[in-house]
Amino acid sequence: MESSTILPLSHFSFLSQKPHGTSIGSFPLNQWNPTSQKTRLNCQKMYVPGFGEASPEAKAAKNLHNLFTYVAVRVVNAQLESYNTEAHKELTEFMEKHSLNDGDKFCAALMRESSRHKTLAMRILEVRSAYCKKDFEWENLERLAKKMADESNTRLMRDYVLETSHVETEK
Amino acid sequence: MESSTILPLSHFSFLSQKPHGTSIGSFPLNQWNPTSQKTRLNCQKMYVPGFGEASPEAKAAKNLHNLFTYVAVRVVNAQLESYNTEAHKELTEFMEKHSLNDGDKFCAALMRESSRHKTLAMRILEVRSAYCKKDFEWENLERLAKKMADESNTRLMRDYVLETSHVETEK
Repeated sequence: MESSTILPLSHFSFLSQKPHGTSIGSFPLNQWNPTSQKTRLNCQKMYVPGFGEASPEAKAAKNLHNLFTYVAVRVVNAQLESYNTEAHKELTEFMEKHSLNDGDKFCAALMRESSRHKTLAMRILEVRSAYCKKDFEWENLERLAKKMADESNTRLMRDYVLETSHVETEK
Repeated sequence: MESSTILPLSHFSFLSQKPHGTSIGSFPLNQWNPTSQKTRLNCQKMYVPGFGEASPEAKAAKNLHNLFTYVAVRVVNAQLESYNTEAHKELTEFMEKHSLNDGDKFCAALMRESSRHKTLAMRILEVRSAYCKKDFEWENLERLAKKMADESNTRLMRDYVLETSHVETEK
Protein backbone atom coordinates (compact mmCIF):
# COMPACT_ATOMS: atom_id res chain seq x y z
CA MET A 1 0.00 0.00 0.00
CA GLU A 2 1.35 3.36 -0.96
CA SER A 3 -0.70 5.53 1.28
CA SER A 4 1.97 5.77 3.93
CA THR A 5 4.46 7.00 1.40
CA ILE A 6 2.28 9.66 -0.16
CA LEU A 7 0.52 11.07 2.84
CA PRO A 8 3.63 12.53 4.47
CA LEU A 9 4.47 14.30 1.20
CA SER A 10 1.03 15.81 1.16
CA HIS A 11 1.55 16.91 4.71
CA PHE A 12 4.48 19.08 3.68
CA SER A 13 2.67 20.48 0.69
CA PHE A 14 -0.21 21.24 3.05
CA LEU A 15 2.03 23.39 5.19
CA SER A 16 2.95 25.58 2.27
CA GLN A 17 -0.56 25.73 0.84
CA LYS A 18 -3.86 26.78 2.26
CA PRO A 19 -5.84 23.78 3.45
CA HIS A 20 -8.93 23.43 1.28
CA GLY A 21 -11.49 23.10 4.03
CA THR A 22 -10.14 25.70 6.38
CA SER A 23 -8.79 28.52 4.25
CA ILE A 24 -11.09 31.24 5.49
CA GLY A 25 -9.77 34.19 3.56
CA SER A 26 -6.95 35.84 5.43
CA PHE A 27 -7.79 34.34 8.81
CA PRO A 28 -4.72 32.86 10.47
CA LEU A 29 -4.97 29.20 11.26
CA ASN A 30 -4.80 29.66 14.98
CA GLN A 31 -8.01 31.65 15.09
CA TRP A 32 -11.11 29.89 16.22
CA ASN A 33 -12.60 28.01 13.33
CA PRO A 34 -16.21 26.93 13.69
CA THR A 35 -16.20 24.69 10.62
CA SER A 36 -13.85 21.97 11.68
CA GLN A 37 -12.32 21.27 15.02
CA LYS A 38 -10.76 18.13 13.61
CA THR A 39 -8.76 20.11 11.06
CA ARG A 40 -7.34 22.38 13.69
CA LEU A 41 -6.30 19.54 15.93
CA ASN A 42 -4.88 17.29 13.26
CA CYS A 43 -3.76 19.00 10.07
CA GLN A 44 -2.92 15.84 8.15
CA LYS A 45 -5.07 16.40 5.12
CA MET A 46 -4.05 16.07 1.51
CA TYR A 47 -3.64 19.24 -0.51
CA VAL A 48 -6.42 19.32 -3.10
CA PRO A 49 -5.68 21.52 -6.12
CA GLY A 50 -8.13 22.54 -8.82
CA PHE A 51 -10.91 24.13 -6.78
CA GLY A 52 -9.71 27.73 -6.76
CA GLU A 53 -10.87 29.52 -3.65
CA ALA A 54 -13.70 27.06 -3.11
CA SER A 55 -13.43 23.53 -1.74
CA PRO A 56 -14.58 20.07 -2.77
CA GLU A 57 -17.20 20.42 -0.01
CA ALA A 58 -18.55 23.64 -1.58
CA LYS A 59 -18.60 22.01 -5.01
CA ALA A 60 -20.44 18.99 -3.60
CA ALA A 61 -22.90 21.27 -1.76
CA LYS A 62 -23.67 23.06 -5.03
CA ASN A 63 -24.34 19.72 -6.74
CA LEU A 64 -26.58 18.65 -3.86
CA HIS A 65 -28.41 21.98 -4.06
CA ASN A 66 -29.30 21.22 -7.68
CA LEU A 67 -30.32 17.69 -6.73
CA PHE A 68 -32.61 19.05 -3.99
CA THR A 69 -34.25 21.37 -6.52
CA TYR A 70 -34.80 18.40 -8.84
CA VAL A 71 -36.29 16.42 -5.96
CA ALA A 72 -38.55 19.34 -4.95
CA VAL A 73 -39.83 19.77 -8.51
CA ARG A 74 -40.63 16.06 -8.74
CA VAL A 75 -42.29 16.06 -5.30
CA VAL A 76 -44.48 19.10 -6.07
CA ASN A 77 -45.41 17.81 -9.53
CA ALA A 78 -46.36 14.40 -8.16
CA GLN A 79 -48.56 16.07 -5.55
CA LEU A 80 -50.26 18.31 -8.14
CA GLU A 81 -51.07 15.29 -10.27
CA SER A 82 -53.60 14.10 -7.72
CA TYR A 83 -55.52 17.31 -7.04
CA ASN A 84 -54.62 20.03 -9.54
CA THR A 85 -54.23 18.55 -12.99
CA GLU A 86 -54.03 21.96 -14.66
CA ALA A 87 -51.06 23.08 -12.56
CA HIS A 88 -49.51 19.62 -13.02
CA LYS A 89 -49.78 20.03 -16.80
CA GLU A 90 -48.31 23.52 -16.68
CA LEU A 91 -45.35 22.44 -14.57
CA THR A 92 -44.74 19.38 -16.73
CA GLU A 93 -44.72 21.54 -19.86
CA PHE A 94 -42.37 24.01 -18.21
CA MET A 95 -40.03 21.16 -17.22
CA GLU A 96 -39.93 19.98 -20.83
CA LYS A 97 -38.74 23.39 -21.99
CA HIS A 98 -36.33 24.27 -19.16
CA SER A 99 -33.33 22.34 -17.93
CA LEU A 100 -33.16 21.36 -14.27
CA ASN A 101 -29.36 21.17 -14.33
CA ASP A 102 -29.17 24.60 -12.70
CA GLY A 103 -31.91 24.54 -10.06
CA ASP A 104 -31.80 28.24 -9.20
CA LYS A 105 -31.98 29.24 -12.86
CA PHE A 106 -34.99 26.94 -13.30
CA CYS A 107 -36.77 28.47 -10.28
CA ALA A 108 -35.97 32.04 -11.39
CA ALA A 109 -37.45 31.34 -14.83
CA LEU A 110 -40.50 29.63 -13.31
CA MET A 111 -41.20 32.64 -11.06
CA ARG A 112 -41.25 34.90 -14.11
CA GLU A 113 -43.44 32.72 -16.36
CA SER A 114 -46.83 33.74 -14.91
CA SER A 115 -48.41 34.39 -11.53
CA ARG A 116 -49.60 30.75 -11.39
CA HIS A 117 -46.10 29.56 -12.17
CA LYS A 118 -44.78 31.90 -9.50
CA THR A 119 -46.94 30.17 -6.89
CA LEU A 120 -45.50 26.84 -7.99
CA ALA A 121 -41.98 28.24 -7.80
CA MET A 122 -42.52 29.48 -4.23
CA ARG A 123 -43.70 26.04 -3.28
CA ILE A 124 -40.71 24.38 -4.89
CA LEU A 125 -38.38 26.71 -2.94
CA GLU A 126 -40.14 25.77 0.27
CA VAL A 127 -40.06 22.04 -0.46
CA ARG A 128 -36.37 21.97 -1.38
CA SER A 129 -35.49 23.77 1.84
CA ALA A 130 -37.61 21.38 3.91
CA TYR A 131 -36.22 18.38 2.04
CA CYS A 132 -32.62 19.48 2.58
CA LYS A 133 -33.15 20.15 6.29
CA LYS A 134 -35.49 17.38 7.35
CA ASP A 135 -35.87 14.58 4.85
CA PHE A 136 -32.51 14.10 3.20
CA GLU A 137 -30.55 11.38 5.00
CA TRP A 138 -27.09 12.84 5.47
CA GLU A 139 -25.72 9.90 7.41
CA ASN A 140 -27.02 7.54 4.78
CA LEU A 141 -25.26 9.57 2.08
CA GLU A 142 -21.95 9.27 3.92
CA ARG A 143 -22.43 5.55 4.46
CA LEU A 144 -23.36 4.92 0.82
CA ALA A 145 -20.43 6.97 -0.52
CA LYS A 146 -17.90 5.17 1.69
CA LYS A 147 -19.36 1.81 0.70
CA MET A 148 -19.18 2.82 -2.96
CA ALA A 149 -15.49 3.75 -2.57
CA ASP A 150 -14.70 0.24 -1.27
CA GLU A 151 -16.91 -1.66 -3.67
CA SER A 152 -15.83 0.29 -6.77
CA ASN A 153 -12.15 -0.19 -5.98
CA THR A 154 -12.65 -3.92 -5.44
CA ARG A 155 -14.66 -4.25 -8.66
CA LEU A 156 -12.15 -2.30 -10.75
CA MET A 157 -9.24 -4.40 -9.49
CA ARG A 158 -11.14 -7.68 -9.82
CA ASP A 159 -12.22 -6.89 -13.39
CA TYR A 160 -8.67 -5.99 -14.31
CA VAL A 161 -7.25 -9.18 -12.82
CA LEU A 162 -9.91 -11.32 -14.50
CA GLU A 163 -9.26 -9.63 -17.83
CA THR A 164 -5.49 -9.93 -17.72
CA SER A 165 -5.46 -13.51 -16.41
CA HIS A 166 -7.87 -14.41 -19.22
CA VAL A 167 -5.43 -12.99 -21.77
CA GLU A 168 -2.61 -14.95 -20.23
CA THR A 169 -4.62 -18.18 -20.33
CA GLU A 170 -5.28 -17.67 -24.03
CA LYS A 171 -1.58 -17.34 -24.83
CA MET B 1 -18.63 28.81 -6.54
CA GLU B 2 -18.80 30.31 -3.13
CA SER B 3 -15.82 32.06 -1.72
CA SER B 4 -14.49 30.61 1.47
CA THR B 5 -14.29 34.08 2.99
CA ILE B 6 -17.96 33.90 3.93
CA LEU B 7 -17.58 30.83 6.08
CA PRO B 8 -17.19 32.58 9.48
CA LEU B 9 -20.31 34.68 8.90
CA SER B 10 -22.24 31.60 7.95
CA HIS B 11 -21.72 30.08 11.34
CA PHE B 12 -23.56 32.87 13.10
CA SER B 13 -26.26 33.24 10.50
CA PHE B 14 -26.73 29.48 10.62
CA LEU B 15 -27.34 29.58 14.35
CA SER B 16 -29.57 32.63 14.35
CA GLN B 17 -31.65 31.79 11.31
CA LYS B 18 -34.75 29.78 11.85
CA PRO B 19 -35.26 27.39 9.00
CA HIS B 20 -38.12 28.56 6.89
CA GLY B 21 -40.24 26.29 4.77
CA THR B 22 -41.01 23.89 7.54
CA SER B 23 -44.72 23.66 6.94
CA ILE B 24 -45.13 20.76 4.62
CA GLY B 25 -48.85 21.39 4.11
CA SER B 26 -50.79 18.72 2.36
CA PHE B 27 -47.90 16.49 1.38
CA PRO B 28 -48.35 12.75 1.65
CA LEU B 29 -46.35 11.99 4.75
CA ASN B 30 -46.67 8.29 5.26
CA GLN B 31 -44.80 6.86 2.28
CA TRP B 32 -42.46 4.07 3.15
CA ASN B 33 -38.90 4.49 1.95
CA PRO B 34 -36.86 1.27 2.09
CA THR B 35 -33.48 3.00 2.18
CA SER B 36 -33.36 4.03 5.80
CA GLN B 37 -34.00 2.61 9.22
CA LYS B 38 -34.85 6.10 10.44
CA THR B 39 -37.59 6.32 7.85
CA ARG B 40 -39.12 3.11 9.03
CA LEU B 41 -39.22 4.37 12.58
CA ASN B 42 -40.42 7.86 11.72
CA CYS B 43 -42.43 7.94 8.51
CA GLN B 44 -42.88 11.69 8.18
CA LYS B 45 -41.08 12.10 4.89
CA MET B 46 -42.19 13.38 1.52
CA TYR B 47 -42.63 10.88 -1.26
CA VAL B 48 -39.91 11.47 -3.83
CA PRO B 49 -40.70 10.14 -7.32
CA GLY B 50 -38.31 9.92 -10.24
CA PHE B 51 -35.49 7.85 -8.78
CA GLY B 52 -36.69 4.38 -9.73
CA GLU B 53 -35.39 1.82 -7.28
CA ALA B 54 -32.59 4.11 -6.15
CA SER B 55 -32.90 7.08 -3.81
CA PRO B 56 -31.74 10.71 -3.87
CA GLU B 57 -29.09 9.64 -1.36
CA ALA B 58 -27.77 6.95 -3.74
CA LYS B 59 -27.76 9.42 -6.63
CA ALA B 60 -25.89 11.96 -4.49
CA ALA B 61 -23.41 9.29 -3.35
CA LYS B 62 -22.70 8.42 -6.99
CA ASN B 63 -22.04 12.10 -7.77
CA LEU B 64 -19.75 12.37 -4.75
CA HIS B 65 -17.94 9.21 -5.85
CA ASN B 66 -17.09 10.89 -9.16
CA LEU B 67 -16.05 14.05 -7.32
CA PHE B 68 -13.74 12.02 -5.07
CA THR B 69 -12.14 10.44 -8.14
CA TYR B 70 -11.61 13.90 -9.62
CA VAL B 71 -10.06 15.06 -6.34
CA ALA B 72 -7.81 11.97 -6.16
CA VAL B 73 -6.58 12.46 -9.72
CA ARG B 74 -5.76 16.11 -8.98
CA VAL B 75 -4.07 15.21 -5.69
CA VAL B 76 -1.91 12.48 -7.24
CA ASN B 77 -1.01 14.63 -10.24
CA ALA B 78 -0.02 17.55 -8.03
CA GLN B 79 2.19 15.24 -5.95
CA LEU B 80 3.83 13.76 -9.07
CA GLU B 81 4.64 17.23 -10.36
CA SER B 82 7.20 17.72 -7.62
CA TYR B 83 9.12 14.45 -7.85
CA ASN B 84 8.17 12.47 -10.96
CA THR B 85 7.74 14.80 -13.90
CA GLU B 86 7.53 11.94 -16.40
CA ALA B 87 4.60 10.32 -14.63
CA HIS B 88 3.04 13.77 -14.14
CA LYS B 89 3.25 14.36 -17.90
CA GLU B 90 1.78 10.96 -18.69
CA LEU B 91 -1.15 11.45 -16.32
CA THR B 92 -1.79 14.98 -17.61
CA GLU B 93 -1.84 13.70 -21.19
CA PHE B 94 -4.19 10.90 -20.22
CA MET B 95 -6.51 13.40 -18.49
CA GLU B 96 -6.65 15.49 -21.65
CA LYS B 97 -7.86 12.51 -23.66
CA HIS B 98 -10.24 10.92 -21.14
CA SER B 99 -13.22 12.47 -19.40
CA LEU B 100 -13.34 12.45 -15.61
CA ASN B 101 -17.15 12.65 -15.55
CA ASP B 102 -17.32 8.92 -14.88
CA GLY B 103 -14.55 8.28 -12.35
CA ASP B 104 -14.66 4.50 -12.50
CA LYS B 105 -14.53 4.48 -16.29
CA PHE B 106 -11.52 6.81 -16.15
CA CYS B 107 -9.71 4.54 -13.68
CA ALA B 108 -10.55 1.39 -15.65
CA ALA B 109 -9.10 2.97 -18.81
CA LEU B 110 -6.03 4.20 -16.94
CA MET B 111 -5.33 0.71 -15.58
CA ARG B 112 -5.31 -0.68 -19.11
CA GLU B 113 -3.14 2.02 -20.74
CA SER B 114 0.24 0.65 -19.66
CA SER B 115 1.88 -0.86 -16.59
CA ARG B 116 3.08 2.58 -15.52
CA HIS B 117 -0.42 3.96 -15.90
CA LYS B 118 -1.72 1.00 -13.91
CA THR B 119 0.49 1.98 -10.98
CA LEU B 120 -0.94 5.51 -11.14
CA ALA B 121 -4.48 4.12 -11.28
CA MET B 122 -3.90 1.98 -8.19
CA ARG B 123 -2.66 5.04 -6.37
CA ILE B 124 -5.68 7.08 -7.45
CA LEU B 125 -8.01 4.34 -6.17
CA GLU B 126 -6.20 4.39 -2.87
CA VAL B 127 -6.24 8.19 -2.57
CA ARG B 128 -9.94 8.52 -3.37
CA SER B 129 -10.80 5.94 -0.74
CA ALA B 130 -8.61 7.71 1.84
CA TYR B 131 -10.02 11.10 0.86
CA CYS B 132 -13.61 9.91 1.16
CA LYS B 133 -13.01 8.27 4.53
CA LYS B 134 -10.63 10.67 6.21
CA ASP B 135 -10.30 14.07 4.57
CA PHE B 136 -13.69 14.97 3.18
CA GLU B 137 -15.60 17.11 5.67
CA TRP B 138 -19.07 15.56 5.76
CA GLU B 139 -20.41 17.89 8.42
CA ASN B 140 -19.15 20.87 6.48
CA LEU B 141 -20.94 19.59 3.37
CA GLU B 142 -24.24 19.37 5.27
CA ARG B 143 -23.76 22.83 6.76
CA LEU B 144 -22.89 24.40 3.40
CA ALA B 145 -25.83 22.77 1.61
CA LYS B 146 -28.33 23.90 4.25
CA LYS B 147 -26.90 27.40 4.16
CA MET B 148 -27.12 27.39 0.37
CA ALA B 149 -30.79 26.39 0.57
CA ASP B 150 -31.57 29.43 2.74
CA GLU B 151 -29.41 31.89 0.85
CA SER B 152 -30.54 30.81 -2.60
CA ASN B 153 -34.21 31.05 -1.67
CA THR B 154 -33.70 34.50 -0.18
CA ARG B 155 -31.75 35.66 -3.22
CA LEU B 156 -34.29 34.32 -5.71
CA MET B 157 -37.18 36.01 -3.91
CA ARG B 158 -35.29 39.26 -3.38
CA ASP B 159 -34.26 39.43 -7.05
CA TYR B 160 -37.83 38.79 -8.13
CA VAL B 161 -39.22 41.47 -5.83
CA LEU B 162 -36.58 43.98 -6.92
CA GLU B 163 -37.29 43.21 -10.56
CA THR B 164 -41.07 43.50 -10.29
CA SER B 165 -41.04 46.59 -8.07
CA HIS B 166 -38.66 48.21 -10.59
CA VAL B 167 -41.21 47.51 -13.35
CA GLU B 168 -43.99 49.01 -11.26
CA THR B 169 -41.94 52.11 -10.55
CA GLU B 170 -41.39 52.62 -14.26
CA LYS B 171 -45.13 52.50 -14.98
